[in-house]
Amino acid sequence: MRGRRLLAEADVVIADRLGPRDLLAELPPHVEVIDAAKIPYGRFMAQEAINNALIEHAVQGKSVVRLKGGDPYVFGRGMEELQALAEAGIPCTVVPGISSSISVPGAAGIPVTHRGVAHEFTVVSGHVAPDDERSLVDWPSLAKLTGTLVVLMGVDKIGKIAETLVAHGKSPDTPVALVQEGTTAAQRRVDATLATVAETVVAQEVRPPPSSSSARSSP
Amino acid sequence: MRGRRLLAEADVVIADRLGPRDLLAELPPHVEVIDAAKIPYGRFMAQEAINNALIEHAVQGKSVVRLKGGDPYVFGRGMEELQALAEAGIPCTVVPGISSSISVPGAAGIPVTHRGVAHEFTVVSGHVAPDDERSLVDWPSLAKLTGTLVVLMGVDKIGKIAETLVAHGKSPDTPVALVQEGTTAAQRRVDATLATVAETVVAQEVRPPPSSSSARSSP
Repeated sequence: MRGRRLLAEADVVIADRLGPRDLLAELPPHVEVIDAAKIPYGRFMAQEAINNALIEHAVQGKSVVRLKGGDPYVFGRGMEELQALAEAGIPCTVVPGISSSISVPGAAGIPVTHRGVAHEFTVVSGHVAPDDERSLVDWPSLAKLTGTLVVLMGVDKIGKIAETLVAHGKSPDTPVALVQEGTTAAQRRVDATLATVAETVVAQEVRPPPSSSSARSSP
Repeated sequence: MRGRRLLAEADVVIADRLGPRDLLAELPPHVEVIDAAKIPYGRFMAQEAINNALIEHAVQGKSVVRLKGGDPYVFGRGMEELQALAEAGIPCTVVPGISSSISVPGAAGIPVTHRGVAHEFTVVSGHVAPDDERSLVDWPSLAKLTGTLVVLMGVDKIGKIAETLVAHGKSPDTPVALVQEGTTAAQRRVDATLATVAETVVAQEVRPPPSSSSARSSP
């Protein structure tokens, strides 16, 4: 509700392709909507160009809304944008949204915790494989936890992830639910186990959403 | 937005004390609002009495909204209510909300993940102490993870939790942020380390919200 109110009061909205774009159609005609994917970045990184666009409009005294797709603080680059604004002396308020890491399992019938079953849950990115040297994740310790493990952006590397968890002690029979396009009309849930998940992904043609790999690529 | 629309279409709303009660003031006068804390439970547990109230109104053909405080799937008893409804053959849709486990750190300036710093985060309840035999949490493994650890309902047992994490290898200098009444007008953040957090809680009078201990007591 608060996000919607701030959108209605904005002069400029810088939006992601993966964001809730329906909201943009409701904006008054004087609001300038900028597609973050189309900001030219010349000698900058795309992220740096977005940071600069935010700053450039804000220093003109405009009220700028950055409408992010996904949770900007869960494997997104929200904090980097916030830091760039802080360095430029521009005040910024964060309006939290609904994170897919909890809501998508919930909408698919899976509570991330449940009395007597799961007393904690961990959210990890599947974008960086367990054997990638850039990974900061201690997979052997993750394998020992008994709560729910939520893997985001995990389709491509799910075989390696399942193998690593089993190699460090998780039962091959541990149930795995694959949820594709969760909370959308196209939502689909496919069940497997750690032992079968790699072949299930192939057999059932489970796929990441169309534009996710390019839009959320931060390791 | 979807939750608000369903509230507007409800015949009966069963609401928690900790829920967003402002929404109730907007409801049309014919909507019956039931305070979950005031449902008489005679020979039942309070939770069972709530389940029964949901079923009783639904079998009369009414559209029932259960408005929960906190995230019902994160140390709440959402799944138990859903199971009771499923057993009674009553269809139910879950509308996910904004979980404090991610939004409260975010609103206090702490991204639960950050590129090159935290590649995973774990959410655990502080309600059950690490040495409690009911605990299913593998604290030694939690202590080895390098990502963000979010402890909900942790004020009372934070000393024991910090001590356990240090005993299993976390640095005593690990930064700890205490966020009280996050995202409300009374939000307060107090910084400490694992070594100092127990004394900081006492010295700074960090307290759980007034009615939380009775309202969210499931281990």
